[in-house]
Amino acid sequence: MSIPASINPPPRLLMGPGPITADPRVLRAMSAQLVGQYDPWMTDTMNEVMGLYRQVYITDNQQTLLVDGTSRAGIEAALVSLLEPGDRVLVPIFGRFGHLLAEICRRAGADVHTIETEWGQVFTEEALEAALVDVQPKVLAVVHGDTSTTVAQPLEGLGELCERHGALLYVDCTATLGGNEFRTDEWGIDVATSGLQKCLGGPSGSAPVTFSPRAVEVIESRKSIEEGIRAEGDPVSAHPIRSNYLDMAQIFDYWSERRLNHHTEATTMLYGSRECARILLQEGLAQSWARHDLHGRAMLAGTTALGLEPFGALAYRMTNVVGVHIPDGVNGDEVRAAMLEDFGIEIGTSFGPLHGKVWRIGTMGYNARTDAVLQTLAALEAVLRRAGHRAAAGAGVDAAYDLYGTAV
Amino acid sequence: MSIPASINPPPRLLMGPGPITADPRVLRAMSAQLVGQYDPWMTDTMNEVMGLYRQVYITDNQQTLLVDGTSRAGIEAALVSLLEPGDRVLVPIFGRFGHLLAEICRRAGADVHTIETEWGQVFTEEALEAALVDVQPKVLAVVHGDTSTTVAQPLEGLGELCERHGALLYVDCTATLGGNEFRTDEWGIDVATSGLQKCLGGPSGSAPVTFSPRAVEVIESRKSIEEGIRAEGDPVSAHPIRSNYLDMAQIFDYWSERRLNHHTEATTMLYGSRECARILLQEGLAQSWARHDLHGRAMLAGTTALGLEPFGALAYRMTNVVGVHIPDGVNGDEVRAAMLEDFGIEIGTSFGPLHGKVWRIGTMGYNARTDAVLQTLAALEAVLRRAGHRAAAGAGVDAAYDLYGTAV
Repeated sequence: MSIPASINPPPRLLMGPGPITADPRVLRAMSAQLVGQYDPWMTDTMNEVMGLYRQVYITDNQQTLLVDGTSRAGIEAALVSLLEPGDRVLVPIFGRFGHLLAEICRRAGADVHTIETEWGQVFTEEALEAALVDVQPKVLAVVHGDTSTTVAQPLEGLGELCERHGALLYVDCTATLGGNEFRTDEWGIDVATSGLQKCLGGPSGSAPVTFSPRAVEVIESRKSIEEGIRAEGDPVSAHPIRSNYLDMAQIFDYWSERRLNHHTEATTMLYGSRECARILLQEGLAQSWARHDLHGRAMLAGTTALGLEPFGALAYRMTNVVGVHIPDGVNGDEVRAAMLEDFGIEIGTSFGPLHGKVWRIGTMGYNARTDAVLQTLAALEAVLRRAGHRAAAGAGVDAAYDLYGTAV
Repeated sequence: MSIPASINPPPRLLMGPGPITADPRVLRAMSAQLVGQYDPWMTDTMNEVMGLYRQVYITDNQQTLLVDGTSRAGIEAALVSLLEPGDRVLVPIFGRFGHLLAEICRRAGADVHTIETEWGQVFTEEALEAALVDVQPKVLAVVHGDTSTTVAQPLEGLGELCERHGALLYVDCTATLGGNEFRTDEWGIDVATSGLQKCLGGPSGSAPVTFSPRAVEVIESRKSIEEGIRAEGDPVSAHPIRSNYLDMAQIFDYWSERRLNHHTEATTMLYGSRECARILLQEGLAQSWARHDLHGRAMLAGTTALGLEPFGALAYRMTNVVGVHIPDGVNGDEVRAAMLEDFGIEIGTSFGPLHGKVWRIGTMGYNARTDAVLQTLAALEAVLRRAGHRAAAGAGVDAAYDLYGTAV
């Protein structure tokens, strides 16, 4: 039997596409002691968290709450609860997380239709409308910002489009919420799901989600589980939600005043989620969007000055993650290893068609800060120089300073 | 916009059936800062956690790891990954969590067969064998200790029985692991899933699970998802695992040396899980089982001395939770409210057929301690007295003292 020492992570500045360094206030909140699941203080706190995330999502949706799992659990809870086997769903894919949405929909038994565009690009409203006309889906499921490509699909107008074509609009805003403009009600979004580990500055493991009354109605109509199960012999006629853990109808009941027992709430993650929202709202949503925009632009200016060509359609780039082409002759993994091992700074690799070609550098949540940006640029310049890629001395840092100077 | 103050839970001694007061060391470990998902330190730590839980589960199973969700996520991950639609599963139900297993199996599309016994009782080996012969299931899915009834199904011999009848043995040991004898390999258990919030002394939100090579083989054989999806037109011929988030085949890959990306690990919950296992192994499994047994017996002696009749088959009672009948003429909810509001001590109510009839008092994890037992008994005597139920002054505490004296 070998028993290791108490946990002692190495110091890291996490400047990848997420998870990022957690705000210390969030970690402190998570060290608060537990209370019972139905303690009046606990149920009050659950209600308070609903209110906080209504503000974060800019929505009046009653059903704004947490799914106890990572952002992926939130995505699956939404889709498996909305979609019955055979239901048509349209998934526009412009990066890795679009593929994930499609896969989750397939697992739920849906009739999945996809349209695809090149990584780094987004869809025009016309392309989306044409697909909606063609597919006539029950749900349009789209990623907002896809960190795999560093670009965000514009969402304004999409809700109206969906309304017109009788579809519900689901948005995965894991990577954007809190750091990019996101307006649930104003944009006509029916369901949105997120996570803490990006712009919200917390650890992965809790998924804030919101459901419009229209989406709730669709989900609640599937609630007669027992009937569904009894009809199982004729599987086309009635489909109970395929998951118990991710059954939003039951999770709504658990968070409702009825407090019907479901899972045992992950209280420490709830404390963390609460603190993430609290910190964000204390700063102000518009202020946080502007902060992410500023530090994202500083990172873009700095990396450009270092001679790194930006990746993707800049007009649609996310505020919180910059993609840059790995220069010819430079080994991307070696540079990342030196950044991590010698400077304690993590930057991100890429997946799929971008693997080995693009680095992704995040400036989000707690790490959307001047010192984090400047440290990263200084280290990157030094490491790139040793890897044979030269820029004018101090070029990256100077460009960021210039941008900050202009911005102030 | 209203923004509440930082989190400030009221002080509580959680003596219900779980969640219980977390060990402060676990909460401290959870305040450690994050590192990146593929940081060598992080992947080393994931491997370390696998090793720790192999010791906790007393198993050589390579696939011993965490599911990122509450104990219920672990249950569903196991069952939805093992069971294809139409597969026969046998679920012996002796309390609420047996019903949960059956429901989760139904949602997975399985052909669910149940046998039931009265709450408070367990099944004989003969009854289980007869059902195995009758149903010929692919999986026997059974709860070890069902907190809803405070009794535990004996598991020794069950593995051999399943082997003989060609079934896999799945056990939900959420409420027992760490505080009751549990031997995965020796008892021939193929799959077991648990949670942190009972005898492991942590918060809900991470599910330690273990899978035998035989179970892994069954799950891996379902892995050709794409084939399954292509064959979806003929849904009987090929069934990909119905969940992405809870797909154990993908989660195995994520925890393997291949590190295939799945969800973003809930790092803070991983730190907590690691500390729970570390504390338990530092104490020693046999020592922890004995400690739970001792304090459970003290609580039983104390409540009996207070004139509270124990509930359920005492020969099969769990070490870590005592069920007692609410005395005639006493309002159970009022007593629980006074315990909570006036003494800060939570004891549990009951569900289903026991609702309003039985209290459940836990002594587990961090709260399997002399002071926690004595405080609870002293408070309970005082509150019961005010509710009109009288016992000899100090009877509960004295009985516990006597038991501790004998036990030393």
